[in-house]
Amino acid sequence: MLRRKRLDEISWEDFNRLSLEEKAPYLVQANGRPYHVLIAQQFNREQLDGLCDLATRIRRIAKSKEGMRFLSDLLCHKRAMLDFTQPSSRTFLSFYAACQILGIRPAEVRDPSISSEMKGESREDSVRTFSSYFDMIIMRTPLQGFVEKMVWELSNTDRPLPIINAGSGKDQHPTQALLDIYTLQRSFEKNGELANKHIVFCGDLARGRTVRSLSRLLTYYPNIRQTFAAPEHLKIGQDIIDDLAAHNVDFTVTTDFKSTIPTADAIYMTRIQDEWDKTAGESSHFNLMDFALTVDDMKQLPHTSVIMHPLPRRHEIDPAIDSDPRAVYWRQMRNGMWVRSALIATIFGRDQEITHYYMMNLK
Amino acid sequence: MLRRKRLDEISWEDFNRLSLEEKAPYLVQANGRPYHVLIAQQFNREQLDGLCDLATRIRRIAKSKEGMRFLSDLLCHKRAMLDFTQPSSRTFLSFYAACQILGIRPAEVRDPSISSEMKGESREDSVRTFSSYFDMIIMRTPLQGFVEKMVWELSNTDRPLPIINAGSGKDQHPTQALLDIYTLQRSFEKNGELANKHIVFCGDLARGRTVRSLSRLLTYYPNIRQTFAAPEHLKIGQDIIDDLAAHNVDFTVTTDFKSTIPTADAIYMTRIQDEWDKTAGESSHFNLMDFALTVDDMKQLPHTSVIMHPLPRRHEIDPAIDSDPRAVYWRQMRNGMWVRSALIATIFGRDQEITHYYMMNLK
Amino acid sequence: MLRRKRLDEISWEDFNRLSLEEKAPYLVQANGRPYHVLIAQQFNREQLDGLCDLATRIRRIAKSKEGMRFLSDLLCHKRAMLDFTQPSSRTFLSFYAACQILGIRPAEVRDPSISSEMKGESREDSVRTFSSYFDMIIMRTPLQGFVEKMVWELSNTDRPLPIINAGSGKDQHPTQALLDIYTLQRSFEKNGELANKHIVFCGDLARGRTVRSLSRLLTYYPNIRQTFAAPEHLKIGQDIIDDLAAHNVDFTVTTDFKSTIPTADAIYMTRIQDEWDKTAGESSHFNLMDFALTVDDMKQLPHTSVIMHPLPRRHEIDPAIDSDPRAVYWRQMRNGMWVRSALIATIFGRDQEITHYYMMNLK
Repeated sequence: MLRRKRLDEISWEDFNRLSLEEKAPYLVQANGRPYHVLIAQQFNREQLDGLCDLATRIRRIAKSKEGMRFLSDLLCHKRAMLDFTQPSSRTFLSFYAACQILGIRPAEVRDPSISSEMKGESREDSVRTFSSYFDMIIMRTPLQGFVEKMVWELSNTDRPLPIINAGSGKDQHPTQALLDIYTLQRSFEKNGELANKHIVFCGDLARGRTVRSLSRLLTYYPNIRQTFAAPEHLKIGQDIIDDLAAHNVDFTVTTDFKSTIPTADAIYMTRIQDEWDKTAGESSHFNLMDFALTVDDMKQLPHTSVIMHPLPRRHEIDPAIDSDPRAVYWRQMRNGMWVRSALIATIFGRDQEITHYYMMNLK
Repeated sequence: MLRRKRLDEISWEDFNRLSLEEKAPYLVQANGRPYHVLIAQQFNREQLDGLCDLATRIRRIAKSKEGMRFLSDLLCHKRAMLDFTQPSSRTFLSFYAACQILGIRPAEVRDPSISSEMKGESREDSVRTFSSYFDMIIMRTPLQGFVEKMVWELSNTDRPLPIINAGSGKDQHPTQALLDIYTLQRSFEKNGELANKHIVFCGDLARGRTVRSLSRLLTYYPNIRQTFAAPEHLKIGQDIIDDLAAHNVDFTVTTDFKSTIPTADAIYMTRIQDEWDKTAGESSHFNLMDFALTVDDMKQLPHTSVIMHPLPRRHEIDPAIDSDPRAVYWRQMRNGMWVRSALIATIFGRDQEITHYYMMNLK
Repeated sequence: MLRRKRLDEISWEDFNRLSLEEKAPYLVQANGRPYHVLIAQQFNREQLDGLCDLATRIRRIAKSKEGMRFLSDLLCHKRAMLDFTQPSSRTFLSFYAACQILGIRPAEVRDPSISSEMKGESREDSVRTFSSYFDMIIMRTPLQGFVEKMVWELSNTDRPLPIINAGSGKDQHPTQALLDIYTLQRSFEKNGELANKHIVFCGDLARGRTVRSLSRLLTYYPNIRQTFAAPEHLKIGQDIIDDLAAHNVDFTVTTDFKSTIPTADAIYMTRIQDEWDKTAGESSHFNLMDFALTVDDMKQLPHTSVIMHPLPRRHEIDPAIDSDPRAVYWRQMRNGMWVRSALIATIFGRDQEITHYYMMNLK
């Protein structure tokens, strides 16, 4: 269990200077449960296992009306603010649904132009405003480092409250990494477990934040082989490579995606994110279809393997593949709702109550 | 009772080719209740009567706090997505309120620009996303045929769910037709019933989808005379005329609206929808006031008649008429909330529970 | 207690012609409770005291889950429409949260472009639409006098409902005045009471509607000295000065803000609202920092004094002051949620139930 350190006993400069791993103890509660959610690396294996187990329990409890009634009573006294100044359908809606499942009353800001910022208010003051009316802030922002700053700032007011990073800048999207881990665990339940597997990442590995986070979390699981298949100019960052090497992970970097298919246990496809292109058309100098999955490719893929994708997709997966049982990306998306529910319930200390209900009623 | 046919046993091409009437069996549940709501013509007389009765029961139950408590518990375990990429105040808010009345937790998309579509996602994938987090989709779209396509597509996934068409393109707005029928029934309760009446439609009959749907449903009721009063270039479509003739309905097409007033039991006013004009100013070549209702006109209208309007209005009804007891358009609008509540309750199989509560407590 | 006069027994012209004080009886219920909330001056001292007491009770009840459960059951059968066609984060969110606290199901319009007004509907018809689906309208609008007009109009339909003015044009923002009074009362609880105090207003006193309302309400409290410190061209309106003189209030008008600090019991800072500038740059002809509060200034301010601000702020308060215990503006903002909850509960007649619960459980 992580031993808590206090954010009101460290300066912003000192906190900001810490490594991702060193920040972890500042983000937990006295009982070791997560409080703020900032970076994928803050979770250790024990926490991941706990969240995955809880997500499954919530998912099963939610199947009945009585179960839904139990869940929606758990946090009916709480209100959450979804502060999404960077657009996102999927992350927004799954957090929104997660709040509704737990009975939390949600409010939202999705368009920064409809707000007091027109009157010259600082973003810091806007977020502090939300903290006054709500019990939790779920925040998505294009500003790198901003969520972290607000976590520190609000912890130094007389009204601290938990903040969940729902995607910040190009760097972090920790709850996406959680749902990816949960999906891998569920996918391999009947086929061993999340160990001794070959995971292939494909697409825009330089700019996709989900792969960076997931790759790091996979080092917690024994004997995972990681392959990174990307066009030369979009290959995985050197920092990730160095990190994997330091952890003695078996990994490969390649530009030949198609050759990796026959040995993959999971293929994690990603979209070429040309919205981050530095020069227009930068992403059109290579053949997109070399990093796409076609119906034909599926013949090469083992029957027990799975295909994942954080979505939205464009051309990298043919929609005809959707009906193949190995295509788990729609279920993966839905898993986001369950694992986010589990996370919020844990932050507010309702995990044991859920587990108890599950044991008494569904075991 | 309609016998259900299965959407996962017919190809999209074959389904798309069916007549409106032939589609009806594909939209019901095994027990004959509606499941998807796509077109006004899918309802038969028996279903219309059931929905109108249920709407009245819900309306009366909702008058007390205990009644509201009963209603809001019925579907408190469900979440609905209101996907309104075409703007609409009235339809949106009445569906929203209907969800709230039944305890359904609503989420909304009202501005397509705040969404992942910016990242190049297909509309189909967006809707499938909604299906992952919610239990029902209520959809308004400018794309003709799109709701129908999604109904078929989601029925062929492992996560089908009911979809309600809240207005699609120029062609269909089935719940508007439901509330119109309900309003006519209520209006004639004390004055006979919805039979042997003269209904006058006035305004933009070429482009208004509500008149087209309502006209068709009125053929279910005995001896209804229909008059269509419109400027020449906005007159009712030939397909409607052919259809009425085929059903032996007594109907008249005219450009002289004012002369129809003294014999009308109901006047259904509509707005000149110049947003659909093919050339700018197309709708300014005739005298708008010839198709408007003034305080003076009211002297010609029988005391037991009613004036309806789907709203919003512009100049076609003088606001001074609002306080006349024959003006039922505001009540008509409110009826939309009740009949939509009845529809949703029926789709989720709660109609008998409501009727039972009504019989025990309010009869 | 105010004796109620009926809005459906007076013409719009006659009502509109009344003084602010004369309008008050038209805004209450038969039992003297507020019904519509239009102007700060409609509240008398008795009503203010009642609302402040109730706000404190709600605030304390809300601390426990059982308390929140009690509160959120009070109005769970009601739905409210937040019609915010003028942007506002703070007022919107605190009303939204207040509705959630009391169990009211909220719906919102925040962007007038996503609405039927595109189709040429009048604002009056739009508001009447809201009245059809909801039990209360909370309205913010840039149109001066519009809320008042709708209050009169809806009172003359067969479906009247309470309307709360959440800020209209440049003139009125009555619930801001309520939260300001509540904050002053709370601030002086341990330091005497809201009497015999020196209140300094600073900033844009010509255009800020909050100061105008608050100044007027302060005349209800004994021996309050008021100082108005503003640049020459932004000084407090002559109508306020005349009014204070007529009430024999001890007041000062000055351009020297800094000299007022050592004797102030409360400093009420306001933002220079250059969005109302008639000519660009009008507000840049004086030194903004003469009407700002710095860390240095705090040394001059008595230890028992408080600093208020309606927020949002720009440069007029240094964020370094936020952590000073005399800075109560964040708490002031949060008070808005409590006093708005108290107001809504009172309008719907739940005040005694709340007081009873408080006496039984928390006294």
